[in-house]
Amino acid sequence: MALTDRTVPTDVALNTDLYELTMAQGFFESGLMDAQGCFNVFFRENPFGGGYAVACGIGQIAELVQNMRFDDESISYLASVKAPGGGPMFRAAFLDYLRDFRPHLDVWAVPEGDLVFPREPMVRVQGPIIECQLLETALLNLVNFQTLVATKAARVVYAAEGHPVSDFGLRRAQGHDGGLAVARASFIGGCASTSNVLAGKIYGIPVFGTHAHSWVMAFPTEIDAFRAFAKSSPKNCCLLLDTYDVHQGIQNAIVVAKEMEDAGERLSAIRIDSGDLARLSKDTRTAFDEAGLPYVKISVSNDLDEYTIQSLFAQGAPIDSFGVGTKLATCDPQPALGGVYKLSATRASNDEPWRPVMKLSEQVYKRTIPGVQRVLRFRDASGVPMGDMIVDDAVDTGERGCMIDLIDAIATYRLKGYESQDLLTQIVADGEPLDNQNSIGEARARCKEAIMHLDPATKRFLNPQIYPVGLERGLADLRQRLASEERGE
Amino acid sequence: MALTDRTVPTDVALNTDLYELTMAQGFFESGLMDAQGCFNVFFRENPFGGGYAVACGIGQIAELVQNMRFDDESISYLASVKAPGGGPMFRAAFLDYLRDFRPHLDVWAVPEGDLVFPREPMVRVQGPIIECQLLETALLNLVNFQTLVATKAARVVYAAEGHPVSDFGLRRAQGHDGGLAVARASFIGGCASTSNVLAGKIYGIPVFGTHAHSWVMAFPTEIDAFRAFAKSSPKNCCLLLDTYDVHQGIQNAIVVAKEMEDAGERLSAIRIDSGDLARLSKDTRTAFDEAGLPYVKISVSNDLDEYTIQSLFAQGAPIDSFGVGTKLATCDPQPALGGVYKLSATRASNDEPWRPVMKLSEQVYKRTIPGVQRVLRFRDASGVPMGDMIVDDAVDTGERGCMIDLIDAIATYRLKGYESQDLLTQIVADGEPLDNQNSIGEARARCKEAIMHLDPATKRFLNPQIYPVGLERGLADLRQRLASEERGE
Repeated sequence: MALTDRTVPTDVALNTDLYELTMAQGFFESGLMDAQGCFNVFFRENPFGGGYAVACGIGQIAELVQNMRFDDESISYLASVKAPGGGPMFRAAFLDYLRDFRPHLDVWAVPEGDLVFPREPMVRVQGPIIECQLLETALLNLVNFQTLVATKAARVVYAAEGHPVSDFGLRRAQGHDGGLAVARASFIGGCASTSNVLAGKIYGIPVFGTHAHSWVMAFPTEIDAFRAFAKSSPKNCCLLLDTYDVHQGIQNAIVVAKEMEDAGERLSAIRIDSGDLARLSKDTRTAFDEAGLPYVKISVSNDLDEYTIQSLFAQGAPIDSFGVGTKLATCDPQPALGGVYKLSATRASNDEPWRPVMKLSEQVYKRTIPGVQRVLRFRDASGVPMGDMIVDDAVDTGERGCMIDLIDAIATYRLKGYESQDLLTQIVADGEPLDNQNSIGEARARCKEAIMHLDPATKRFLNPQIYPVGLERGLADLRQRLASEERGE
Repeated sequence: MALTDRTVPTDVALNTDLYELTMAQGFFESGLMDAQGCFNVFFRENPFGGGYAVACGIGQIAELVQNMRFDDESISYLASVKAPGGGPMFRAAFLDYLRDFRPHLDVWAVPEGDLVFPREPMVRVQGPIIECQLLETALLNLVNFQTLVATKAARVVYAAEGHPVSDFGLRRAQGHDGGLAVARASFIGGCASTSNVLAGKIYGIPVFGTHAHSWVMAFPTEIDAFRAFAKSSPKNCCLLLDTYDVHQGIQNAIVVAKEMEDAGERLSAIRIDSGDLARLSKDTRTAFDEAGLPYVKISVSNDLDEYTIQSLFAQGAPIDSFGVGTKLATCDPQPALGGVYKLSATRASNDEPWRPVMKLSEQVYKRTIPGVQRVLRFRDASGVPMGDMIVDDAVDTGERGCMIDLIDAIATYRLKGYESQDLLTQIVADGEPLDNQNSIGEARARCKEAIMHLDPATKRFLNPQIYPVGLERGLADLRQRLASEERGE
């Protein structure tokens, strides 16, 4: 939670879309200050054509809510914004409200690092609708990207079959906190380390690095450069072989490795950053083994992702570790999760029952799920998750034996005999963090455990098995009824 | 330059890859403190399969260099980092050097907002090689992403044919400064406004917004919601029509627009955020025109990019403005520019001549350009750029009539008779900003002008004409010679 003190500026409450503030003013001026909303964050499709996503960013939500304060400078700025049609966009009474603002929201979320699937709420926010609205953009900005990166990292780590993966993505990230988000989320998704020193300082993630081609080019010859690096970094020596010619690089690195042995040190690894990594890693392994240097490890980088790593192993490449940068930090080829924040229930005040609401659309897959939603995750006796059922207590029929598919209401899933657990946990009450915030180490362990238990058919990259998510019968009936009513049927 | 005081934390010098610091320690311990480097930032291919890129992030480089200071907390963290083989990664003498560090770098760059093409330096950094190395990651992190977003924005704005485009991407960006970078760069690339309030405050970019579906769902009926919004935002009233059914939404909005007229106000616009935007915008236009409301503008959003906008106009959609979010903020479908920072010359000290250096690779396109490079941009009499020639003064033959292609050394470009100008301008001297920093408004105007003058064949999205970039003959000969030498020929 070290982020609080340093990268979140005091005016972070303005880290929002303008419409959140114009709507807030609308609620304020309409006298709807007691009106309550229930909003859910969810996405509609698994990223990367995969079978799951890793919930991430969750551990920073409580801090985000606490930081919903408008300082004087922010109020002055808002007072200066003009409406396109003339006059100030925001009026004095509303600005006074913002000046004294303190959040009263309640938040539930999937534990960070756990798996989450399309259409089920990964975060549920309840409270005064005006406050829910003010949180929207910053919350999406937080969990959308980190969930995407954690998912990408989990896929890359899965492909690496236990060999360590390091995040090298800072130079391709969106500014310094983009880089921090990449490092944090990819560590939770399973990366072993990051090249990002600031992330090491703030989050305690192990830092890792070698040297650049420029190091080699700064010396008269490659072997001069290798010797100088070995002298300066004997306990952290990984030599980069591909500045000029990898095979010459191998010979130079072997000479330096032998010199290090004479000095009582060991060359820990070499890195290859271009060319045919499958062939070059084999040539390197053979050369180092023949030179009596079997302990020197092989690290590779160069636009890697889960597919190239899988392909390298399929070709028998003897690679020990991976540096993954661009495609991790930018989540290539799908740079957005598309997570949304949708209202699912309202009530005029705390004392009233919730009124479930639902957004329709020409695009049927954009229709939302109404109600105050819980998620039950069903597991078999060995802990393998078998399906997630979305339940609204207000319309719960208690039918736990079968679950109605979201997309195709005819399909049902049999869940009889499995144990279920609530997936969402409350993490914020009345605007304040509860005493159950996780460390990123705990989130990382949870992710590892969750992926270990997931059916391999759901983990594969090509045509993964779809993990069942559906509605409890009462909720399915409610949704059907609301859709008909709103269409005027 | 307001960013200085607020979002850049004091330990931003750690916003770097670990290897920059281990290399720096290596230079320090090798006694190479006088050794100078000349590094270039460049990319190898235009993003999005397009014909150009818009240089962006440049305006923040000087500030970045000024912020290269290591505070006590950063030094303590570095002192705590362990080498994998045991012992501290960094030694006391080097940490003392960092504690007293102040940069002495010189930086040249393409003026922000101007066009830049593959393989030519967009930023050139010279100075003590140890300092050049410490700047690398943060510099790439700054210009890589902003150049990509500004380019995407320029494409989207070009497709919008003069209709305003607003950046709606904050919720899909990488954290709050990811969102700020998106807003800044897309404004420079030509967007008219942003939804990001913090970007409005910090950069003075006009802010824009409407309301969300949740606003409509929070009221008993759609028309109640429209009335409440019109009452609260009469000078900024854009109604969202697609919460339930767009055609019903049109009728409700017309009723409210008439009521607004009665109250002496005007409904400024409606927005459609889902469905067939071509058909729905036509239906909307017809309905509002028939209702005597021709002044109500039509705004659309929903996963837009340059291609969907072009397609909407090709279908005759009567759209007045666009909100572009996800695909702008994430630069879908190419989320990384791939900009690199490569050493091109070294010298043992300030007093010596530069020694050009060059990185080879099995992947021939990864071979770099040696030398201390300038870029001459040649223009015809009407200001249309005809080609860029990379020149190294040390080997300049003065042959300005033809330019040798970078990729295929046989091809040459005729440039005789065109006027040329130096593209790179010095912006930092001895670590301090020069007095020629641009505002983002100036950068935006420069981008608009540059794109206006560019050959339409280079601007088109499908198979754009390749803008010629080549080497002056002396530099081409040098490169050929160095490649042969390094290969041992």
